[in-house]
Amino acid sequence: MVSARKVRMGMVGGGEGAFIGHVHRQAAGLDGRIELVCGTFSRDPDNNRRTGEALGLAPPRCYGTWQDLLEGERQLPPEARVEFLTIVTPNHLHAPIAEATLRAGFHVFSEKPAALSLQEVQRLAQTLGGSDRLYGLAHTYLGYPMVWQARELVSSGALGRLRKVFVEYPQGWLSEDQAAQGNKQASWRGEPEQAGPSGCMADIGTHAFSLAEFVSGQRIQRLCATLGMHVAGRQLDDDGAMLFETAQGATGVLLASQVCAGEENALSIRLYGEKGGLEWRQEEPNSLIHRPLGEPMRVLRAGANHAWLCGEARRRLRLPAGHPEGYLEAMANLYSGFADAIRGPASLGFPGIEAGLRGMAFIEAVIASHHSDSKWTPLANIG
Amino acid sequence: MVSARKVRMGMVGGGEGAFIGHVHRQAAGLDGRIELVCGTFSRDPDNNRRTGEALGLAPPRCYGTWQDLLEGERQLPPEARVEFLTIVTPNHLHAPIAEATLRAGFHVFSEKPAALSLQEVQRLAQTLGGSDRLYGLAHTYLGYPMVWQARELVSSGALGRLRKVFVEYPQGWLSEDQAAQGNKQASWRGEPEQAGPSGCMADIGTHAFSLAEFVSGQRIQRLCATLGMHVAGRQLDDDGAMLFETAQGATGVLLASQVCAGEENALSIRLYGEKGGLEWRQEEPNSLIHRPLGEPMRVLRAGANHAWLCGEARRRLRLPAGHPEGYLEAMANLYSGFADAIRGPASLGFPGIEAGLRGMAFIEAVIASHHSDSKWTPLANIG
Amino acid sequence: MVSARKVRMGMVGGGEGAFIGHVHRQAAGLDGRIELVCGTFSRDPDNNRRTGEALGLAPPRCYGTWQDLLEGERQLPPEARVEFLTIVTPNHLHAPIAEATLRAGFHVFSEKPAALSLQEVQRLAQTLGGSDRLYGLAHTYLGYPMVWQARELVSSGALGRLRKVFVEYPQGWLSEDQAAQGNKQASWRGEPEQAGPSGCMADIGTHAFSLAEFVSGQRIQRLCATLGMHVAGRQLDDDGAMLFETAQGATGVLLASQVCAGEENALSIRLYGEKGGLEWRQEEPNSLIHRPLGEPMRVLRAGANHAWLCGEARRRLRLPAGHPEGYLEAMANLYSGFADAIRGPASLGFPGIEAGLRGMAFIEAVIASHHSDSKWTPLANIG
Amino acid sequence: MVSARKVRMGMVGGGEGAFIGHVHRQAAGLDGRIELVCGTFSRDPDNNRRTGEALGLAPPRCYGTWQDLLEGERQLPPEARVEFLTIVTPNHLHAPIAEATLRAGFHVFSEKPAALSLQEVQRLAQTLGGSDRLYGLAHTYLGYPMVWQARELVSSGALGRLRKVFVEYPQGWLSEDQAAQGNKQASWRGEPEQAGPSGCMADIGTHAFSLAEFVSGQRIQRLCATLGMHVAGRQLDDDGAMLFETAQGATGVLLASQVCAGEENALSIRLYGEKGGLEWRQEEPNSLIHRPLGEPMRVLRAGANHAWLCGEARRRLRLPAGHPEGYLEAMANLYSGFADAIRGPASLGFPGIEAGLRGMAFIEAVIASHHSDSKWTPLANIG
Repeated sequence: MVSARKVRMGMVGGGEGAFIGHVHRQAAGLDGRIELVCGTFSRDPDNNRRTGEALGLAPPRCYGTWQDLLEGERQLPPEARVEFLTIVTPNHLHAPIAEATLRAGFHVFSEKPAALSLQEVQRLAQTLGGSDRLYGLAHTYLGYPMVWQARELVSSGALGRLRKVFVEYPQGWLSEDQAAQGNKQASWRGEPEQAGPSGCMADIGTHAFSLAEFVSGQRIQRLCATLGMHVAGRQLDDDGAMLFETAQGATGVLLASQVCAGEENALSIRLYGEKGGLEWRQEEPNSLIHRPLGEPMRVLRAGANHAWLCGEARRRLRLPAGHPEGYLEAMANLYSGFADAIRGPASLGFPGIEAGLRGMAFIEAVIASHHSDSKWTPLANIG
Repeated sequence: MVSARKVRMGMVGGGEGAFIGHVHRQAAGLDGRIELVCGTFSRDPDNNRRTGEALGLAPPRCYGTWQDLLEGERQLPPEARVEFLTIVTPNHLHAPIAEATLRAGFHVFSEKPAALSLQEVQRLAQTLGGSDRLYGLAHTYLGYPMVWQARELVSSGALGRLRKVFVEYPQGWLSEDQAAQGNKQASWRGEPEQAGPSGCMADIGTHAFSLAEFVSGQRIQRLCATLGMHVAGRQLDDDGAMLFETAQGATGVLLASQVCAGEENALSIRLYGEKGGLEWRQEEPNSLIHRPLGEPMRVLRAGANHAWLCGEARRRLRLPAGHPEGYLEAMANLYSGFADAIRGPASLGFPGIEAGLRGMAFIEAVIASHHSDSKWTPLANIG
Repeated sequence: MVSARKVRMGMVGGGEGAFIGHVHRQAAGLDGRIELVCGTFSRDPDNNRRTGEALGLAPPRCYGTWQDLLEGERQLPPEARVEFLTIVTPNHLHAPIAEATLRAGFHVFSEKPAALSLQEVQRLAQTLGGSDRLYGLAHTYLGYPMVWQARELVSSGALGRLRKVFVEYPQGWLSEDQAAQGNKQASWRGEPEQAGPSGCMADIGTHAFSLAEFVSGQRIQRLCATLGMHVAGRQLDDDGAMLFETAQGATGVLLASQVCAGEENALSIRLYGEKGGLEWRQEEPNSLIHRPLGEPMRVLRAGANHAWLCGEARRRLRLPAGHPEGYLEAMANLYSGFADAIRGPASLGFPGIEAGLRGMAFIEAVIASHHSDSKWTPLANIG
Repeated sequence: MVSARKVRMGMVGGGEGAFIGHVHRQAAGLDGRIELVCGTFSRDPDNNRRTGEALGLAPPRCYGTWQDLLEGERQLPPEARVEFLTIVTPNHLHAPIAEATLRAGFHVFSEKPAALSLQEVQRLAQTLGGSDRLYGLAHTYLGYPMVWQARELVSSGALGRLRKVFVEYPQGWLSEDQAAQGNKQASWRGEPEQAGPSGCMADIGTHAFSLAEFVSGQRIQRLCATLGMHVAGRQLDDDGAMLFETAQGATGVLLASQVCAGEENALSIRLYGEKGGLEWRQEEPNSLIHRPLGEPMRVLRAGANHAWLCGEARRRLRLPAGHPEGYLEAMANLYSGFADAIRGPASLGFPGIEAGLRGMAFIEAVIASHHSDSKWTPLANIG
């Protein structure tokens, strides 16, 4: 049962036509812990106003700019003013808004990437470190219960010493020139000024990377990457793959692609150790395949096998056996963890600035490797 | 984008430990269209109070009884008072509370079954018909987008004349004596006074039945059923199966069981016509298998194949390709449809009293058939 | 390692264009235990001669009729003459040829059904009982290793007391009028004189029935069936379903249909007891799903889990983990068992006349039930 | 229908306990086209004699050495003597025996690898080129019908210009030290003198490689590989992965591993082009997934979709819809193609010396890349 008073959320971005804002609002609202109290949704005043109205916001709290929002909310009494801002703008604004929000005394929940460069995210980390505010990053896939169960099986030694990690994220939606066809999502994601130095690797490669490090409990320390661009006029990578090694000596392959025609959102991870293997697929998130060496394959199911699941997995489940939970529930787990952390006592963990640091270090290493003739490029042990 | 002001919901039942109340609140809240404003959650005053507090209700609107609730809300100004009540009590209270709620001038959204007997649901239907109020019934599986897509493929003739319908709902959770082990859900469901004249068939058989009639667009007109009870001391059926025929001449099999050890919630339907077949499984709800005669099997995917989906399916989807949606989203579709119907303009349809009438007629026919030595028992064409 | 000298096989039926003969020859030859030495393949002399030549038979041993074959072979020296005949003619000839073959002193391996009526198969059983010859019946699905493993799990008590058996066999190939389109297989199968009193139930329903009795180790003692015919001009059932109970009190559903458009050969069985469930699907025959109550689902794999398989399953496997075996291998297991039984020492069991008796009793009970207004029709405890 | 007289086969290797010999004999015998007439099965005279007897060979044709075999068979009349030898010895003998066999005037069907080095296989290719004899190489996976269908879809342009190829072959059987546990297969495969310079990459990496080149119709021209060894005392790679590019500009990833604990024989390939994607998995070989861009996923099924399959796929199928075919049938397709080529007219193609050349060039490039600090290593355009 949730605590009585709701945590007050504001949103930057996510006006009409901006898909991800609606997703965040649904996820934030799912557990009844969070209430949207203010926002600035679009640079287009009409869109902004319409969105605020549709969401039932009091007109004065539907601000024209994020600067106005920060200013306006600070002037409200503490018990009324917003507590955290969700940032769902194009990438290049994530870090500047997060910086200002922290400085204004509010918590931040940001879409990823945390910033456009390692340097920028390090600056943000410094600001955060000097504050007493919280920072959450929308690595949504880390909210799935069975991802936590996989991590637990690895860390508890069920696989023995880890040898192999295969992680992949194939999508097909950029097989054609979506931007030319007016797809707004595709459009800004293809422009380096707004998206940053990488396309596919920043957008989905980082999800694969963070999933691999999270579940394995190991850090990648060197990699050998190659990137691709497949549609005329495209300015950023839409595809890539890399070999890698972790600090503990496991090796593996990461691939991410947005030109795998016909694939939807097929993030998956497989890990193999001396004593068994694990497999998890995001498109069927309620199952976790465990192959103990020399025994029949087991399928751990989210709702059905409570007695076999660790506490971290169980706490992220809402429904009984056979009632599928999905992506919104995973994101809701991040929001609930964030709300818990604001109000206490904390219960569910969530990805924070360290995920942002790791992700940017990964992107920069991948790009460096792509341009290098040497086989191996180091990945800094930061974050 | 949703309309600005939220629809005001009250809840009867669903206190601490009553699982289904929490599920309804999550689903009702998911789309940001509905707000919980009052309730009476438990006959235990402490539980009731704690639940109300946890949900952030104003104390005066956390009532001691549903009679108090109806009385209290009627005295509030129209713009503040509750608009509809969600009834999530044990079965035997569904109809009495619904009756009183309608008479008090509020809309009703009820867990199923609508009542304990056909006679009772007919009385309720009469009350409803004499009012200008709305009635929604939680046949949650009819909220899945791909169920609507299946229905559309059948009704548009993609399968040709329908020949076969196989629908099944195996669960395993009553393989052992759950009630003896203190499972509250199992407990009242096993007592005829609270659960009604049927166990398994009323609880899940009706879901299978309504899915079959909904997707096929045909009504079952006769059936041959047999029921089972498998645990010592159990008073109601925990298992059953039937042969059936529809008014249009399709034949099929329905099975529902709660003693299929190891099964979770494996509701599924398969339909075959002159020109092809369809298959949908609730545990993987985002896929719909279509087997056109003489062509390769196709898998229609919820997010990925928008251009291939009908409007009714598309309107029930929230997420892009490969981002799984599940049970809460299906129930949220029912609530959003209900909220739309209250505030207008209506968009998403939802199951109503006719589903309640059909369901009770089904249960009574199944019980009659079970006790009959004749092969066929008619199912009345009501609802 | 097989024994040195090959068992000598003759074939009746299976000329050019008769598909099943070729299948039997491949299966019989697979393990290098059996050699085709004579045959009579077609009533068309040219077809007969061409087939014999193509198979490399000595011309004198390619006989014009099966009567000639029996006569001719008897005159050869014992060490050269045929040892058993495989009968792959249309159904109505199975029993007469089998009778004559046994009387002529040769063993019989027959396609199913064993005969066209219970009476006829009983006569055949009597002949067999009075001889010292062997009789094998091509219930091919009982040759799959994982079917034996399923049987072992049931009989060893892994499921506890058995409660439910669901067996089904949906095909789609008779969705249209295949006979009218010149399909020879469909043609004679649709004529009662050649096929017998039932179409679908005799052709594939018996497979489902024998699989259910074989794996459960229980006999069906009463049933309630209904049959269907779906294409104009068709004379025999192309579809049917039944409820049933076994002598030990388990209940279940059997369905078989040849008008499930788009289905291939989707024989499957599921069994549930007090302590768990099992599931096997013929189209993925190398996996057996075991759901122990309260534990994660296990997938037993044919090649990979030798230590978990019973001897009967292991002895029917040829290949290591992950190298799929299929239908021909299952039939080859029947032939190898039959060859073993002829030459000794016996190792692999195979279905015999008792399967023929059970199958015909089943068909006759199904037909009687279909025409009855009573719910239950007994199934005789013979065979 | 097969031609009348059988092609006469001899075998070198494959005595008792040598698993693969039995597999080859079953596959060679499956279609009734090939007859085993002689062999030398083991250096152990007892094993050799017992194997010959068990197979029903005339004692004089069960030779003590392969040199004796070649000598002995040459002295038989042409219509009796062996026509081709199947070589199933440890790797280091493949090329020497093949050379001698060709020089003796017989055809060769060899297990892979064709030789232990590129130089050796080039010498063999020269001998072959100077003869009029045939050479077949057991790249068994190229015998699967749906692999040919995949190739046809790519070459016919169904995917548009090819962009990505992901091929993988995970096994788990070397997760522990099998050789130390007395596994004979593992034993000689771990010794460089018998197995050659590579373990995993030679054993299964070459299968993945040849599948990728065969289906894509493109040649890999550069690669970046890394190998691993995971068990103490192991002398050869048991794992590896590589990035690659084809001459036509497609890129991809190949991985092969024998330490993926719990995996069986999970060879798979995925290809993506401008207009769609394909996926095939060896463990479910009768399905081919086709994802046309913007359309629902299709599953082409071996038996069920004849009208949708190319002639090359259809000619490799034996059974109707839903009757699974497996590994032995795939290998039988190679043998039948080889027999056709010997007797004519040729029908089914089979892998030959060019596959041997490509495979050895691949192995040598992978090893070179593993030891190189440069990112890319060229793969020679030979074979």
